[in-house]
Amino acid sequence: MAGNSFGTLLRITTWGESHGPAIGAVVDGVPSRLPLSEADIQPFLDRRRPGQSRFTTQRQESDQVRILSGVFEGRTTGTPIQLLIENQDQRSKDYGEIAERFRPGHADYTYWMKYGIRDYRGGGRSSARETAARVAAGAVARVILARSAPGNAIRIRGALVQLGPHPIDRSRWDWAEVERNPLFCPDPGSVGLWSDFLDGVRRSGSSIGAVVELVAENVPPGLGDPVYGKLDADLAAALMGINAVKGVEIGDGFAVAALSGEDNADEMRARPGGGVDFLSNHAGGILGGISSGQDIVARFAVKPTSSILTPRRTIDIHGHDTEIVTKGRHDPCVGIRAVPVGEAMMACVLADHLLRHRANAGLVPL
Amino acid sequence: MAGNSFGTLLRITTWGESHGPAIGAVVDGVPSRLPLSEADIQPFLDRRRPGQSRFTTQRQESDQVRILSGVFEGRTTGTPIQLLIENQDQRSKDYGEIAERFRPGHADYTYWMKYGIRDYRGGGRSSARETAARVAAGAVARVILARSAPGNAIRIRGALVQLGPHPIDRSRWDWAEVERNPLFCPDPGSVGLWSDFLDGVRRSGSSIGAVVELVAENVPPGLGDPVYGKLDADLAAALMGINAVKGVEIGDGFAVAALSGEDNADEMRARPGGGVDFLSNHAGGILGGISSGQDIVARFAVKPTSSILTPRRTIDIHGHDTEIVTKGRHDPCVGIRAVPVGEAMMACVLADHLLRHRANAGLVPL
Amino acid sequence: MAGNSFGTLLRITTWGESHGPAIGAVVDGVPSRLPLSEADIQPFLDRRRPGQSRFTTQRQESDQVRILSGVFEGRTTGTPIQLLIENQDQRSKDYGEIAERFRPGHADYTYWMKYGIRDYRGGGRSSARETAARVAAGAVARVILARSAPGNAIRIRGALVQLGPHPIDRSRWDWAEVERNPLFCPDPGSVGLWSDFLDGVRRSGSSIGAVVELVAENVPPGLGDPVYGKLDADLAAALMGINAVKGVEIGDGFAVAALSGEDNADEMRARPGGGVDFLSNHAGGILGGISSGQDIVARFAVKPTSSILTPRRTIDIHGHDTEIVTKGRHDPCVGIRAVPVGEAMMACVLADHLLRHRANAGLVPL
Amino acid sequence: MAGNSFGTLLRITTWGESHGPAIGAVVDGVPSRLPLSEADIQPFLDRRRPGQSRFTTQRQESDQVRILSGVFEGRTTGTPIQLLIENQDQRSKDYGEIAERFRPGHADYTYWMKYGIRDYRGGGRSSARETAARVAAGAVARVILARSAPGNAIRIRGALVQLGPHPIDRSRWDWAEVERNPLFCPDPGSVGLWSDFLDGVRRSGSSIGAVVELVAENVPPGLGDPVYGKLDADLAAALMGINAVKGVEIGDGFAVAALSGEDNADEMRARPGGGVDFLSNHAGGILGGISSGQDIVARFAVKPTSSILTPRRTIDIHGHDTEIVTKGRHDPCVGIRAVPVGEAMMACVLADHLLRHRANAGLVPL
Repeated sequence: MAGNSFGTLLRITTWGESHGPAIGAVVDGVPSRLPLSEADIQPFLDRRRPGQSRFTTQRQESDQVRILSGVFEGRTTGTPIQLLIENQDQRSKDYGEIAERFRPGHADYTYWMKYGIRDYRGGGRSSARETAARVAAGAVARVILARSAPGNAIRIRGALVQLGPHPIDRSRWDWAEVERNPLFCPDPGSVGLWSDFLDGVRRSGSSIGAVVELVAENVPPGLGDPVYGKLDADLAAALMGINAVKGVEIGDGFAVAALSGEDNADEMRARPGGGVDFLSNHAGGILGGISSGQDIVARFAVKPTSSILTPRRTIDIHGHDTEIVTKGRHDPCVGIRAVPVGEAMMACVLADHLLRHRANAGLVPL
Repeated sequence: MAGNSFGTLLRITTWGESHGPAIGAVVDGVPSRLPLSEADIQPFLDRRRPGQSRFTTQRQESDQVRILSGVFEGRTTGTPIQLLIENQDQRSKDYGEIAERFRPGHADYTYWMKYGIRDYRGGGRSSARETAARVAAGAVARVILARSAPGNAIRIRGALVQLGPHPIDRSRWDWAEVERNPLFCPDPGSVGLWSDFLDGVRRSGSSIGAVVELVAENVPPGLGDPVYGKLDADLAAALMGINAVKGVEIGDGFAVAALSGEDNADEMRARPGGGVDFLSNHAGGILGGISSGQDIVARFAVKPTSSILTPRRTIDIHGHDTEIVTKGRHDPCVGIRAVPVGEAMMACVLADHLLRHRANAGLVPL
Repeated sequence: MAGNSFGTLLRITTWGESHGPAIGAVVDGVPSRLPLSEADIQPFLDRRRPGQSRFTTQRQESDQVRILSGVFEGRTTGTPIQLLIENQDQRSKDYGEIAERFRPGHADYTYWMKYGIRDYRGGGRSSARETAARVAAGAVARVILARSAPGNAIRIRGALVQLGPHPIDRSRWDWAEVERNPLFCPDPGSVGLWSDFLDGVRRSGSSIGAVVELVAENVPPGLGDPVYGKLDADLAAALMGINAVKGVEIGDGFAVAALSGEDNADEMRARPGGGVDFLSNHAGGILGGISSGQDIVARFAVKPTSSILTPRRTIDIHGHDTEIVTKGRHDPCVGIRAVPVGEAMMACVLADHLLRHRANAGLVPL
Repeated sequence: MAGNSFGTLLRITTWGESHGPAIGAVVDGVPSRLPLSEADIQPFLDRRRPGQSRFTTQRQESDQVRILSGVFEGRTTGTPIQLLIENQDQRSKDYGEIAERFRPGHADYTYWMKYGIRDYRGGGRSSARETAARVAAGAVARVILARSAPGNAIRIRGALVQLGPHPIDRSRWDWAEVERNPLFCPDPGSVGLWSDFLDGVRRSGSSIGAVVELVAENVPPGLGDPVYGKLDADLAAALMGINAVKGVEIGDGFAVAALSGEDNADEMRARPGGGVDFLSNHAGGILGGISSGQDIVARFAVKPTSSILTPRRTIDIHGHDTEIVTKGRHDPCVGIRAVPVGEAMMACVLADHLLRHRANAGLVPL
């Protein structure tokens, strides 16, 4: 399958380069008659938008989304929804230096090796700018999720749980705090430390990695299509496919390696009135690739931006040794803006599986 | 897409339950005229086969594979290759106890919630037995990889790098050692410790997690289909979809969170005579979702088996509180036999991307 | 996508060659808890089975199907269903002559050009024998269709409406007659003529074409996924993909070219008590790629078998001019046994779209 | 799969409604470094554009295409190509009457039944306007086909071979004539008759059907992916999925029903210097679902437009009996403008299969 689409019944196709006229997403498979307007999408784009604090790139983009199709009189029609975002601040002059040199750790080199041509302006298609289209699509997916259960719909939230070497103190986790600081930090006690640390990174023209955590609440049991369309496998692909991500965990993640079967077992008790209570959630809400009804918990690690001021040894497109310094506007920590991107990818995966589950469930009454 | 297939041009479909008459895989999209016989597949199945040491389940399966289609006079014909493995040792009596109770941490519960019916014998479709079909398919994928470059073909190897709380000492890594001990341990200095530790786990009827590392050598640059068919995204899905896996890393994985851009940059030097030398491999051989030509390094974490002798609190299918103890034959550490399974999944993903790359490359001479 | 699968949510993968040990189909995506056993499948295979009259090949195959997976205690589990049919009568000696010569009008030549290798025994994968796997899969699809509406489930029937130059008289159409004669002819008045005609064809070692018509009743409105997953487009692919088919029509088919808009309009009247009555069915039950609730009517044309006794000029695999005469056992009219195959393909397409429709419908109450 | 995409390696996704702000296509999977600009696409859109003669709708659309992504410095980059066409002449007042009534023979009713909502303005997504996006995508596919063989690239042409009850005289076929008359008629002797006939249809506010024939030359042998990705099956889906199409034929099509095996056999002779000459082309260039190297010949039948001035009985969205007369601008014969649309669909299918074939061919030298 050509590589710029994902999802089975809810199918997202994104297009566009950092410095082209526009970027966008086609969202196909949205059930009809759901209320949808730009106002449902814009707030999520605004969360991801650059230039909102000193901790993100100073590129100025209003990221105004336009719905070009698939909506009639305020409701979805079941036809593909084209979401278009114009590029505005494309100072191409900033990027002249990287036209012929590869930034170590960047996709510059591999795009060149694969395609033999490269839109070097701002990273072209490999730019983090592409993630705006993901966020727009994710907002549409959330409209589907909002219908998953009356009064108890699926909710997805994300936060930064580690910035560079500094993890949060989980005992202080406060979801409300995430919206109060520009770092999506859920730990009020870490915000100051992180801000100071990141100021240092920024001033030295360096960059730093991070870890993002996502939580989906109210996910009904039964989502996931084993054994190769497992919910966790689809989440892993969706999150690993975000720019700069190098690791994905579900639930306890790599910590399970050190666990015994006794410790790892999420014991169960019947809930008075029906349903089940789990006494722990090492599994992160997914067992055998299928949602259990517990919160789905996923984490992903984001590497530091490769655009830094310290010279690095590299080669140019002619195969000669050289050095590179990346000036221009860049995020000192792309992990920050990866929070809304991760949420969007999780929303797309869950909405797709929700639709897939509906297809197969209930042909015979339970 | 129905969930028991994966891959685009090389497409694997597996079928079968732990205690049905047989399991198998259909491998579609294999180029024609490649030499193939059961002898190319059996050694890989033998590596995964249970009952070979005291550290794996004592279920006795010869795991003899039969090619039912797609091969004519010793060569592939381009038509689908059906690989069939009969089940032999299906002591169903061992599993009577779990017919109505859910093992905490196991897919028992989620299959029941999704499907309303469950082949509880040996875990049915969610059994690790399904991975034999993956290994058989992976062996066919290796036949494709063997053609990737004359004398320099892609090679995939795996090893266990952590058993429970005990990681290997990487300074002692020896690939030859992996084939000498039943734990796929590359560190001669860890084998004794691990054996003793695992004996303790086994004798107490407990289980333990592990971490597997995979390395693919000689992968040409250019494999991967950004931005949603990225090579690392497809690897993440393939590895996360293996039974009991809870985390996947590429290259430095979660450690990148603490890295600076300077440290993370894999600097490059022109190689005399052509090509490029990277001075490090934090990226694990993948940049922007495309292979760079460096070794591809991936790791995945495997949780402990949920089948243990210590009673755990659970519910039954009627919604009543109860306890469960899982007797019968089980792996104390499923992570061990996950090594050949992980290799197979990586082989399938790389072979698929190799074919996809061929479709798109070279229409215009570079 | 590799070419031996079709369907989106109900996904069929077939495998196997005419003279290999077995053929089969994996049916993935079947909802769980549907009653299913070999007895639900065998009658459809028996209808297609060769050697039942003098009008079909005398190859003797019992075509006994075995379910190897996906069914537990008589009900589907939601996991893939492997259907296996062993080949029994593989008189390979009959086919020695065609090993190096291409039958004009047969896939011999194109398989050779595409794959550079060819299992020439009985046509290998391009043999009509592959259609047994389609029929088996179609029987499983019918089990899904049987649940489409209580007491009013989707029903699919087919008939031969033209044999060589002899069309039926539609005024005498009798579905019961289809089951009474070996030609699937719905017109009692044509059976004698057709039998005599076909005896002549058979005795002269020739072959002849035919037209098959399929009717699906009780299809609910709303199936079909415009604009590239249209119900008629998927039916067209499914029917054109049957061996030897060269044309497909929906409703009036090619006759619409000569119709005016007035004549083509299927006028509508409100049905007392709800629903709609159409006053004609030129559309064949599909408008804009979506089922209208009327009977779905499709036809397909089957060419004459290329295996005939009259010498034809051809070349051999070495590129030399030669002639070929095809002895051995062959159907004088493959169109006859295409009737159950066409029904099966239609069943698979409708069941897939039924599931797809369920995914998207009803998220908001109408 | 969500329904607004088609193709495997060359993947087309279209979006947009007749009276929305724009329509477009995302073309993904185009190999990199191919020269491409709007000038390669516009001529094909101009051929399909309405309002160019009195025989097509008088809606005025300049159909100017813009490439928003995937092209850098005049060459493709391997990333998705977004083609955008703004809608200009959207006289919505013309369509007020059909907002609540269903045109018999139109998708009005089925969209309503499937989606419960309908963008009735100009037919919304089911409008023939959507085919402009297909034509734009087809022009990109032709750029791939142009690379299929140096000096001997695949060429696709189409013509109208029947208008209403009037077929052409094939003995007078002249490809140059197709470009000289507004009816895409290849028979100079039919143009006058057809024009007079169509004037009568138009003046009476009626409409009429037609048959289109497509021919692809220089197609190499080996394209097609049996047995469910057959080239003819994919063509059948692509052509049946064009608005108003009710039948598809390959080669002799339905006429094969009356042929004997002797007559149907396309005999072969070795070509001096290599290759093969076929003595006839009943097969239309496809055998066993794979191209033979002969011209690929396909035909499709287009029904008359359902928008006519004569009142037809119908119901409204409230389920009441009523009548409908469709005023406004409509094509008296949508079959005419279906010629460039059919060519585009064939180009997309062939380009996709060309890429798929490249993936699988040549891993072992022939």
